[in-house]
This record gives sequence, C-alpha cells and structure tokens, in this order.
Amino acid sequence: MSFKTDIEIAREAKKKPIQEIGEKLGIPTEHLLPYGHDKAKVSQEFIESIKNNRKGKLILVTAINPTPAGEGKTTTTVGLADGMNRIGKKAAICIREASLGPCFGMKGGAAGGGYAQVVPMEEMNLHFTGDFHAITSAHNLLSAMIDNHIYWGNELGIDERRVTWKRVLDMNDRALRDTVTSLGGVANGFPRQTGFDITVASEVMAILCLSNNLEDLQERLGNIIVAYTRKREPIYCRDIKADGAMTVLLKDAMQPNLVQTLENNPAFVHGGPFANIAHGCNSVIATNTALRLADYVVTEAGFGADLGAEKFMNIKCRKANLSPDVVVIVATVRAMKMNGGVARKDLGPENVQAVIDGCPNLGRHIGNMKSFGVPVVVAINHFVTDTDAEIQAVQEYVASQGSEAILSRHWELGGEGAEHLAERVVEIADSGISQFAPLYVDDLPLFEKIERIAHSIYRASEVIADKKVRDQLRAWEEAGYGHLPICMAKTQYSFSTDPNLRGAPTGHTIPIREVRLSAGAGFIVVVCGDIMTMPGLPSRPAAEGIGLNDDGEVEGLF
Amino acid sequence: MSFKTDIEIAREAKKKPIQEIGEKLGIPTEHLLPYGHDKAKVSQEFIESIKNNRKGKLILVTAINPTPAGEGKTTTTVGLADGMNRIGKKAAICIREASLGPCFGMKGGAAGGGYAQVVPMEEMNLHFTGDFHAITSAHNLLSAMIDNHIYWGNELGIDERRVTWKRVLDMNDRALRDTVTSLGGVANGFPRQTGFDITVASEVMAILCLSNNLEDLQERLGNIIVAYTRKREPIYCRDIKADGAMTVLLKDAMQPNLVQTLENNPAFVHGGPFANIAHGCNSVIATNTALRLADYVVTEAGFGADLGAEKFMNIKCRKANLSPDVVVIVATVRAMKMNGGVARKDLGPENVQAVIDGCPNLGRHIGNMKSFGVPVVVAINHFVTDTDAEIQAVQEYVASQGSEAILSRHWELGGEGAEHLAERVVEIADSGISQFAPLYVDDLPLFEKIERIAHSIYRASEVIADKKVRDQLRAWEEAGYGHLPICMAKTQYSFSTDPNLRGAPTGHTIPIREVRLSAGAGFIVVVCGDIMTMPGLPSRPAAEGIGLNDDGEVEGLF
Repeated sequence: MSFKTDIEIAREAKKKPIQEIGEKLGIPTEHLLPYGHDKAKVSQEFIESIKNNRKGKLILVTAINPTPAGEGKTTTTVGLADGMNRIGKKAAICIREASLGPCFGMKGGAAGGGYAQVVPMEEMNLHFTGDFHAITSAHNLLSAMIDNHIYWGNELGIDERRVTWKRVLDMNDRALRDTVTSLGGVANGFPRQTGFDITVASEVMAILCLSNNLEDLQERLGNIIVAYTRKREPIYCRDIKADGAMTVLLKDAMQPNLVQTLENNPAFVHGGPFANIAHGCNSVIATNTALRLADYVVTEAGFGADLGAEKFMNIKCRKANLSPDVVVIVATVRAMKMNGGVARKDLGPENVQAVIDGCPNLGRHIGNMKSFGVPVVVAINHFVTDTDAEIQAVQEYVASQGSEAILSRHWELGGEGAEHLAERVVEIADSGISQFAPLYVDDLPLFEKIERIAHSIYRASEVIADKKVRDQLRAWEEAGYGHLPICMAKTQYSFSTDPNLRGAPTGHTIPIREVRLSAGAGFIVVVCGDIMTMPGLPSRPAAEGIGLNDDGEVEGLF
Repeated sequence: MSFKTDIEIAREAKKKPIQEIGEKLGIPTEHLLPYGHDKAKVSQEFIESIKNNRKGKLILVTAINPTPAGEGKTTTTVGLADGMNRIGKKAAICIREASLGPCFGMKGGAAGGGYAQVVPMEEMNLHFTGDFHAITSAHNLLSAMIDNHIYWGNELGIDERRVTWKRVLDMNDRALRDTVTSLGGVANGFPRQTGFDITVASEVMAILCLSNNLEDLQERLGNIIVAYTRKREPIYCRDIKADGAMTVLLKDAMQPNLVQTLENNPAFVHGGPFANIAHGCNSVIATNTALRLADYVVTEAGFGADLGAEKFMNIKCRKANLSPDVVVIVATVRAMKMNGGVARKDLGPENVQAVIDGCPNLGRHIGNMKSFGVPVVVAINHFVTDTDAEIQAVQEYVASQGSEAILSRHWELGGEGAEHLAERVVEIADSGISQFAPLYVDDLPLFEKIERIAHSIYRASEVIADKKVRDQLRAWEEAGYGHLPICMAKTQYSFSTDPNLRGAPTGHTIPIREVRLSAGAGFIVVVCGDIMTMPGLPSRPAAEGIGLNDDGEVEGLF
C-alpha cells in the first residue's frame, strides 16, 4: 500500500476560481479582492453589509495534549467541514495563517493533511496575502516612532530603560533576541538594550485577531503600552501618535482571506497569534464573517484543549460574544498509546492496554469542555495502523465519560470519510443544547481567575507566585485592568507545567514566573515556564534544501 | 483659478478593471494574477512565451539635476505615454515602485502628478503587491542563516568581524543603523556589531531589478559576498545555501506589476533600487516585458541624467542588452531659474535672464546624453506661472545646443497636453537614428572607468583616491571582477560632489571615499560623499497625521 504525500495531493487539487468559492457563500465578485486566481480577501464593505445576517452554528475543534505522534486537528477541521458539505450542509472553515519564519527551520506545515487539506498550500506557507508583512510593518513603525520621539527631545519623558515595545521580524533569527540599538554616535539616537520577537508574537497580531472592525482596531492599537516614564507612568501607542498610521498599514490585512479545501469548500484563513503569550485563534472578524455566511462554521484553537480551547472560550468568545454549539476533541489511537507510556518507535503493534491507560488525558479534556456548558464529540482521526480493538477501547472509554467517539477517515477519504462525524455534529449543533458560559466572570480578581483555570482545567492543587507578581496584578487592578481575562503561557504537552508529565495529573503546583499586560489586545499574560518568542534555526535549516525545481515548483518547503 | 490636489484627482480616476488594461497589451486574463481589481502581476509563463516577440522602441525620460522647484520626471513619463496613446500609438510606461519607509517620514509620493498620474496611488505607496516585503524576507533569511552557520560550528570559517551582509527593514529607523546582535548568552550566538539598511538599499533589490529570469536571479543571489574568512577569502551566499530559498521567496516578486494611468493606459511599476549605491531603474524584466508587448515604452531613471541616465546606459542597458531610441530630458522654467541663482521664494515673477543663466546645466545634460549616441528631446514641463518669454528663452538655448525643447502641458491637461511632445518623440524613435553605445567597454580597468565617467559626464579634472581604494580595485580585478561596470554614489544635486554647486561646473575634483563590490548585482559601487542607507524620521513624522477618515479613505499619506 503506498500513499501520496500531502504536497503531491495538494498539487493535484482541482481548484476552482476563488470567485466560485465566494459564490457558494453569496459573496459578490466585486466584494472579493483577488490575490491571484485562488485566494481573495472579503471586502470590509461587504462584511459591514452582512452584520445583521442570522448567525450559523459554531463548532470548535480542539485536541488532547499534543504528542509527537500527531493528532490531526486541522486535518479533522477540514475533513469535518468537507463532510458537512457532502451531506448537504452549508459549512465553512476558519483557521489560522502560517508563519513564514519557522518554514525555513523545520519543514513548513500543510493546512491539514492527506485528502483533508486547504489549498493553495505553497502560498499559504509563503507570503500568502501579505497579512503578516503588514503586521511586521505596523509593529516596527511604532518601534521607530518611539526611538524617534526620544531622539527629538523626548517630550513624553520616556525612560529609555523602560521601553517595553520591541521590534519584530517573521524570521527565526536567534541573533536578534537580544540587541543593542542606536550605536554609532549622536545622529543615531540613544543606545539601549532591546530585541526582536517573531511577528506572530507581536501584540499587533493579537489585536488584529480580536478586533471587530477598523475602528475597534485603532482603539486597541492606541491602548498598547509601549514604555514607562521614570515615575512608572505608562506611555501608550496613542501618545506616540502611531495608531492612525498603523491602522492604515493594517486596513487590508483586516479583511479575511478566502481559500478552499481540496473539495472546493470555503475556508477562511486569517490571523495567527501565538498560542502561549497570545490566544492562538484565527481572527474574530473571519469567524464572524463566516458565521454570517454559512450555516455551520468549523474552527480550531491552538495546542490542546487545556490551553487553546480554554483561551478560545475565555478570551475570544468572551470578547467577540461568540458561543460554541459543539466541541469536537480530536484524538488518535497512537496518541492514546503514547499517553499510556508507549515510546514513539513502538506505536506500530496493537496495544489495547496502553490505549486504555492513555485515555484519562482525553477524559480530562472531555470533562473540561463540558464544564463550559458545551456538548462534546470525540473524533478519532483514523490511522491505517489502528486496530478495531484499539478503536473500540477508545470508544468505550469515551462512552463511560458520557460522550461519544466517532471514527473519522477524512485523511484517507476526504469528506466522505467524515460523513458520520458530520452527521452527529450537525445533529448536536442543531439541537441547541449548548449552554455556553466562560469559566469566570470579568470582575473576579486577577489572581483568582488564574486559580480558577489552574484548579478547574489543570486540576492543580495550588498556584504559587512571589510578592512581585501579586503586587503587579494588584497594581493593574487599581489601574483599571482587573476586568481583563487571563492568557496562560505554559507548556502545551501537559496539564501541568512539566512537559514530560503526560496523562491526567492532579495535585501539581503552577508556579507563575512572570505576568505581562497586553493592554491593547486586552488580556493579562501569565507566564509559567520558558516561553520563546524568537525561535532559532536548526543546524541544518530546511531553507538549505528549498528551491525551485525545473517545473518552477517549490521543493523542500514541505 | 483653483487646482485639485494630486490625491483628489487620483481618487476621481475612472479606473478600468486591470484585465482590460492587460487586454490592450494582449495579456490573456489567466496570465494576469490580480491583486485586487486594479493591480496585477504578469505571469512568468506568459513572459517566457513572448520572448521572441518583436521589441518596441525604448524612450528614456531623465532630467536636469534636481532642484527644490521640482522637475516632474515621472509626471512627464506618464504624460508622454498618455500622449502617445492619444495619437494612436501603443505605448506603455515602466517606472519604479515606491518605498514604504519614507512615506511615514515626509509625505508619500504620488506616481506622477496633476492629470498625469499612475493609479492606484494609495496602494502603490503602501504594501502594493508585496514585492518589497518579499525582498526584506529574502534578505533577512540570508542574514539569519549566516549567524546560524556561525552558531552551529562555523564550518566555513567566517570571520565574525568581517560579515558584510547586514539586515534590512522597509522603515525609516535610525536606531537600527548601528547595532550589536546576539547578546544574552550562549543560546543567542556570538555578539557582533552590525546594522540595518532600508530595504531599497538591499543588494537583493538591485539583483531582482537586473535579473532576466528566475534562473538568472538565483545565480546572482548565489554570487552575493556575505562575509570574509580571517584569510580574507570571500564567503558567498551559495556557500550558506540560501540562494534557493531566497529565490522561492522572490518568485512572485519577480513578476512585473501592471497598473494604469488616469487615462487607462498600461503602466508597469516594478522594483525600486536606490539611485546612489544601486542603479536606480525599474526592473529589467518589466522593461523587457513591456518592450515585447508595446510599440513604445517610456521609462525613467533616478535623479538627474548625470547619475540616473548614466547608470541606465552603462549598467542596465549593458546588462540587459537594451538600446534606447530617444532620451527625453525634463526641465522646468522654475528649475532653470534656480540654477540661474534665484531663491525658491522668488520663483514667481518673470526673470528671463535667470532662465538663461541657468540653462547651461541643461546644456551639459543634452551633450552628455548625445555622447551615448542617442537623440535628445527636451520636455519643458509647464507650470502655470511660466511666461512665454521664459519658455522661449529655454527653447532658444536648447536649439543652440542642436536639440529641441517642446512645451508639454500634461500636468494640466493629461495626454492631450503632451500630444506635440509625443508626436516628435515617436518621429525620432521611428527614424532609427539612435546609435547607442555605453561610455566604456567592459575590459577597461576599473579606475579608468571611474575616470571616464568623471571626465565625460561630470567634466571633472581629476579623480582622487587613496592607496587603499586603488589597491582594492586592483584586487577585485585580479579576483575576476574587473569587467564589472561602475555604480557612482554621489550627490544628485550637482555634477560635482558639492551639492551646492549648481549649473555646469568644470575642473572640479571627484574624491573617492570608499568602493564596494556588489558581486551579485554585478557592479562596483564608488562612494563619493555621505551616502545614507538607513534614513531617520523627522521631528514631526508624517505618520502622526496618517489615518483613515470617516469614509475609510487614507488621509495624511500625501
């Protein structure tokens, strides 16, 4: 039995002109701004015109804690939507854009896999429609204007040691993590130590993804805290007068991108904030646009459900007034085995006991998602090596948790393989049984919000933080930021802060290393562990093998 | 009498769908890759398919040394092509793309002015089709890979003190001119002093603009010298294995952009290298594509004729095997007056004597252009304050130089105002009297090439350079770079190296400060004076006033 690679399958895609994909959703051609023949942006005007349309059902695809075995969250998102379209439903996908930088380190990612993919794959891994470049420009304009303000007299009294706004590039470049700028004498300004993050870690990215429209965008950009005075008074982006120009730079990027699945169903691919120091979901504007145009919108959140879905619920849904109708948790037999203690190299042979041993990780996520008041379906993303007994073990376990696990073969068969999953998800979504509520209310004290997440979602026994962290949280409460939600930044591999602690641990401790205020995006980042915001390249970067072949096709990117 | 601003006129443009503009040149819709409804790229495949088409006539628009009065070189380029189309000729324009960074310092530039403009003006001043972002990414990928190579063991033996490849951003940011990177400890690499240039100063930009196709592009990228070993052996981009991935990043950017004039005539806007440390012309691929599709192609070169046209002839035409049929030198009565010693505030009243006194600057350029074997027409770009006597003075002077000066009123009237100019230019182009040859042959020694330019074009009496510079030139000759043309980097305001020396000076000295090898682009940069490759922002940057108005239009950018 031989399989085609994702890129081979993607290259064989019979793409339709993007105008035809738009037509399926009722988007008139003049409101689709094409980028080539297979990508387009939906015009701001059109989005404004549909704001009173009835909203479709929202389905969130999330997963167990990621393992090296791979779970296939995006693959399932795509397969599920294709399956829904196959059974006659009007469904669209909303997923994140890929970051350029990491593609030159490890190989670039497909959007989905097998016969459940979004195309054009190459463009989506390269410049796509330029959104991330626009974010880089907007972010760095603000950086330049801050140093320029200091250079020309520093009227605002910025403490050069307390400029918190760095610069960004969409590149894996460890040399830029920690830099000194403005060397070379008087004409170049005041030397200071600063650095660069990767673009997806920019607060501008998080803001773009949480803004409802351009007005909201500019308001949030203006709220960014860029520095402090010697008296520790915050200096905002709007004090620097950069918010208007940044909005101009971002006006096209704010329009969601439309592409298609291999089965020619509409997919919105828009925004891509980090899932640790930010909330890790596609843009609010894309989700809302899709909901006004399709009857069912399938979207996903970053990492596993403990981080990604928690933030989707507590940050994105809260801010955008969204309410998910169903949560689909993706699991694989292989990942269950790894949670059950099997090494990656031993995943081949049948091992029902390991599957059973690994299931509590899945069970914890099921319970957590239900605690938001949303019904849960488990999708078992089928691998050809899975045995019937192993699959049955997962299904029995999930049934014991009061939910159901459905085998889905979209990777191998496309939407056809996900029809059964699609039917059940539609049935549950239509039933209206979801009673969504976020985990905590806005006016709970910040530290208690953190404890709520740690206890309810991670099942930790305690949250520890030194006086400095607690004082900082109280200071922000006094400054009027106490209503903000929490954005947890911790390892995605475990419910705990120890990446090696698989399964469903309890009684652990969550140590807070640091807290950061994203006043523009509107959340408090709680850092529990090492968080890398500027990756490096490996010793043999993928870039070395990337090039055009004789047919002008990109090789080595995947 | 009241005039509309450029932006008001541009907003009233009755743009046609870009497909209709492409049709005028016979570009099939499937080979036009749209970016929105009014911009498109011409596909690589289509360009390949027309490579044996008959070539049209090439008209170079250049100017006297720029003065604060403004000459209107792009305005004349646009007006002339619109005029040609009005008299029934199939004419296209080729101009450069605008850089984003400077738009946030001083106000952004229109492409042309009055009723002789290229649209869409806003997009052309913002992200346009993303070409410059792609160049930024490709440049910085190479930078990251160099530091990454050193980090992982430095097999090539790069001397960290002799890394010549910096980083770039399309931003005016003086704080980045001179930096130290890789601070923060072992995990971030080896600290070293380096810096950032603005993207248009990148050698990648010059390479993109001089490459004939993607193969040529990758070859030239591979030739970039990025560093030296302790033994002063050069390290090339291809040693770092970045050339393939850079080509992938640039593959879309290599496709020329098509937009339109206010009169719906085709305009290629592609590439934008600096006119000092690079050659300052739009891309070879755009010019060659236009020549295969139109009967007349009107293009322009940066700065005045002594720098821009000289490089157009000696670098671009040489490398791309182009041969201009006519040169149009743009002059204005006001600029003649300034060359004649009148201050900017006194330009209003009639002053025939000052016009006469200023004409020798124009005369020098006429003679210089003729020395390339190309017939010259002077276009007097009409201002409403010009008097008949002043215009007549210019015309009489130009006649005395064996050429002719034609009044052109395209700013006020569009193509209609340039019909007479268009008729004469077509007549001369069609006559076939051009006998173009570059100023020097490839195998002249490098220093003699510099002297040839200094004597023939600048009318300097001598070129001075210290031993280090002369030794360096000899070393490059020995290393096989002696055949390269010279790229002069000096002030654009004078034939001399003193920006205040207007008119037509003779007997001055050209001091060489520094020479640089652009081995990928394929020229030797000769630096005579201060050349700024990373601009700063002014004390009140234009960005502070930029924003969206209530109609969603961009304000403050122009």
